[in-house]
This record gives sequence, structure tokens and C-alpha cells, in this order.
Amino acid sequence: MNVQKRVVEDELESTIHILDAPKSLKEAMLYSLRAGGKRIRPLLMLATMEAFQQDVQKGYPVACAVEMIHTYSLIHDDLPSMDDDDLRRGMPTNHKVFGEALAILAGDGLLTYSFQVLSEMNGVSASDKIRLIRYLAQSAGPEGMVGGQVADIEGEDTSLSLEDLMSIHENKTGRLLTFSVVSAAILCGASEQVIDELEEFSKHIGLAFQIQDDILDIEGSEEKIGKPVGSDEINQKSTYPSLLGLEEAKAKLAEHSRLAKEILAKTGLHTHLLMEIVDLIVKRDH
Amino acid sequence: MNVQKRVVEDELESTIHILDAPKSLKEAMLYSLRAGGKRIRPLLMLATMEAFQQDVQKGYPVACAVEMIHTYSLIHDDLPSMDDDDLRRGMPTNHKVFGEALAILAGDGLLTYSFQVLSEMNGVSASDKIRLIRYLAQSAGPEGMVGGQVADIEGEDTSLSLEDLMSIHENKTGRLLTFSVVSAAILCGASEQVIDELEEFSKHIGLAFQIQDDILDIEGSEEKIGKPVGSDEINQKSTYPSLLGLEEAKAKLAEHSRLAKEILAKTGLHTHLLMEIVDLIVKRDH
Repeated sequence: MNVQKRVVEDELESTIHILDAPKSLKEAMLYSLRAGGKRIRPLLMLATMEAFQQDVQKGYPVACAVEMIHTYSLIHDDLPSMDDDDLRRGMPTNHKVFGEALAILAGDGLLTYSFQVLSEMNGVSASDKIRLIRYLAQSAGPEGMVGGQVADIEGEDTSLSLEDLMSIHENKTGRLLTFSVVSAAILCGASEQVIDELEEFSKHIGLAFQIQDDILDIEGSEEKIGKPVGSDEINQKSTYPSLLGLEEAKAKLAEHSRLAKEILAKTGLHTHLLMEIVDLIVKRDH
Repeated sequence: MNVQKRVVEDELESTIHILDAPKSLKEAMLYSLRAGGKRIRPLLMLATMEAFQQDVQKGYPVACAVEMIHTYSLIHDDLPSMDDDDLRRGMPTNHKVFGEALAILAGDGLLTYSFQVLSEMNGVSASDKIRLIRYLAQSAGPEGMVGGQVADIEGEDTSLSLEDLMSIHENKTGRLLTFSVVSAAILCGASEQVIDELEEFSKHIGLAFQIQDDILDIEGSEEKIGKPVGSDEINQKSTYPSLLGLEEAKAKLAEHSRLAKEILAKTGLHTHLLMEIVDLIVKRDH
């Protein structure tokens, strides 16, 4: 997995380097792309391609595009008018280094460029490219991630039901995780049935991911996460542990992890890397 | 032209209405789309389709997409950390009405959705859609409008050469105007030669547009423009009149208008609506 992670990071670097754009803009875009993180989305994407035993190289542009979308959303989320975060993964946030104006534009640039990268892919049919672009826009736009972010902000000062909470997270983080898995299946020419199964799988890991996020905000180490813990409780945010209790949240986490693996096993694909990612999500400490 | 303008505005409304997204987000997106303006980009797009004597209806999604991109860029440009404008076309700017967080997200939503709209077009081949999406991303992203915006901010406190100024405007506003014209030509199946001619035409109207913008900041009426005039001089911004003198700038404007019309005449297309738009750009008072 570490090899793939390094490959993704190299690909991201060269994808930005080739841009004919102002130096400062490229630096601001690269700064946040370089800021590390687990690269869950591109790794999920490439691990799904491995599950089909296909050459992952074809998937690099998609892996880069999804990480660029994720990174733009972090840059904009961290802005003073949004979460107002000074630190991300232990490093100063984009606007702390480059100023707010350039941070906003670096986000806009990453978002727009991700669609350019998909449109410029080699060795992929135009109709597959359109399917990927449409899927990414639906997952990341007003009906997906951007919509989820709005709902999340609006839900901050109200107590949410478990259903509301799940719907917000489904849009805010789930849809992009699902895109990561399903985009790979599309590229590999998977049948609609397998695509449906993988979509189901993604929903479980999306929920597991979010529950673990909430648990880490209670039990995690500030040093490992790279930002203060306990902020959910201070902000009286509705979370899985606050709605279900910590023990029940942990039980739900285990259940979604089990269901995700069960579905994977049914697909008949070579899923050992995907299984590893499920464990990575459930057992991660940052 | 007024009929087409109303058609575009109706199309924009329904394009947003069908979104399954938070109400507040749709309102913020619609607020700025409704804030009027000249709709130069969609009108250029549709007038170019008319020049090919083709059914303009096919082009509505592209006309909407380009206006959504333009509108997102205005919302982000007006933010306190960017131009910090309270008024746009005589109305409070998006963040003044909805707050900064929602304004940023409304911009992100419009940007992402514009690609979705192109990917979902009916009656257009996948390869033409990819060509349009790629062209739009190149025109609006780090190598186009976003890059131009960064260069513009960085150029604010330095005195620019005429060449620098032209390059900034080419990216910041020219590329999206060119997209408006050329996207229509692509949809109409134009030859590469005609596409090249229309690209050349677009460059002249892009320059004319910007020169007239600079002139209006000196000679325009605050009431008609809907925001204070004279800001370029106060901010010591490099403009065509500041670099060339007002008379020379006016001569350049007339020259680009003449060249634009000459090229149009050569194409052999039915260009009377496009000719009207050239006059609209040159003679506009807001």
C-alpha cells in the first residue's frame, strides 16, 4: 500500500508541474496536495482496479482527480469563514501560508483542473470519460459534497437525528468515497451488478469512516491527528457517539466493517487490497 | 436579443430548480444568477449558433454552463479577502446576503454543476461533450481564468507593461468569451478553419470588452454600472487608458471592433446577431 501511496503522490506532483499557470498558484495547489494524509480515495480507486486485476496505470488520472477534489474541499473548509482552522495534519492551513485570496483560488483551480484531467485521459473511450465526469460532478457538487457541506453548516446549532446525520455524511464524505470505488469499476468495464455491489460496499466503508472519525475526536491522540481533539463536544456537534453512546458507535463501526467485507467476498474479485483498506479505515488512529 | 436573454434566464432558473440540493444553497446560487448583467457569454454562444443557422436549443446547456462559471467567478471575486465588494450591479453581493461560507459554497456549487450540465447534455455525441468539457476546464481553470485572477491580484501593486496587461485579461476574461463562441462552433460541426477564424474574432472582442471596461471606470455613470467608478485610478491599477492615454485607448477599442467585424464577414456565416453583440460591447454604458 505504501508503494501505491508514493506513486499517487508522484503523479499528483507531475500533474501540477505540467500546468502553464502562475508559480504562486501552483505552489499553493501543491502545498495542500503535499500535506500528506492517508490518500484513502486514490488508494481505494487503485485497489479496486487491482481487484479486477487490471493495469492500475490507466486509473492514475482518476486517482489524482479525486484527491484534488478532496484537497480543494479541505482548503475551502479550513477558511476563516468556514471552520477557521489554523492547522491541518499538523501543518499550517493553506490560507495561513498563502493568504485567503490565493487559498480560495487554489481550491477553485484544483476543482476545475480535476475535470480537465479526466477529460484529457488517454486510452479511455469518450463515453466512459463522460460517465466518470458526470459521476464526479454529481458526487462533488450541489447534489453531493457541496450540498452536504451546506447541510453540515446548517445542522451545527441544531440537534440532528441519526437519519439526518447519516444523510449529511453520505453527501459530505460518502459520495466521493463511492466515486473512488465505482469509477475504478467503470474503467475496468464491470457489469452493472458488480457496480451495484461495490456501491453497497462503499456505503458501508463511508459510514465506518465517519464513525471512526467521530470516535477519534473523543479517544484519539492530538499528536497523531495533527489537530485538537474534543472539538465536537465543545461545539455540541451531533456525532455517532453523541447520538448512540460510545459503545454502540463502536459496535456500529464493527458491523459496517463486517458487512463491507462480506459484500466484497461475494463479488468474486481479487479483493485483498480492498480488505486491507477496510482495516485501515477501522483501525486508523489519525 | 432581448428574447434570447430572457430564454437564457429562464433556462438558468430551471437548471437550478431541478437540483436535489439544500434550499439555501439553491437560493444563494440563484440569487447571483438572477442578478442580471448583460449575459454577454450565453448571448455570444447562442448568436454563434444562429450564425450557423442551427437550432439554438441544443446549445442551452452550454449557454447556462458558461454563465454559471462566470457567476461563480464574480461571487468569489467579490469576497472580502478578494475585491471586498459590497455591491454588484447595484445589488448587495452574495456574501453580504448569505454570509461568506455560503457564498464560497454557492460558487463551488456553480463551478462543479457547470461540468455536470455539460456531461448531461442530450443529442450531443460523447466526443463533442468531452471536447467542450476539456475546453471549458482549460478556459476556466489554472491555465485560464483562475490563473488570470491570480496574476491580476499579483499585478495590483506593480506597474504592468501593456503586454502583461493583455496577457492577464486574455486569461481572466478573454478565454471564457472565446469558449462561448468556439463551443457553439464545435456544437455546429464547424470546420477547423472556421473555428480558427472565430477564435481570432473572439480575441478581438475580448480585448474590446476589457478596454471598454477600463474606459467606463473613467467615463461611466455610477448609477448605470451599479458600483463606484474611478476605483482603478484610486487603486493605481494598470489599465489601457493609464498605459496608453484615454484617446489612444478609444482608438484601440475602435480598431478591435473593426477587426472583429472584418473577420466575421470573411466567415461567410449569418452573422448579423454577432455583429450586434460587437456593437453592444463597444457602445455599452454599463
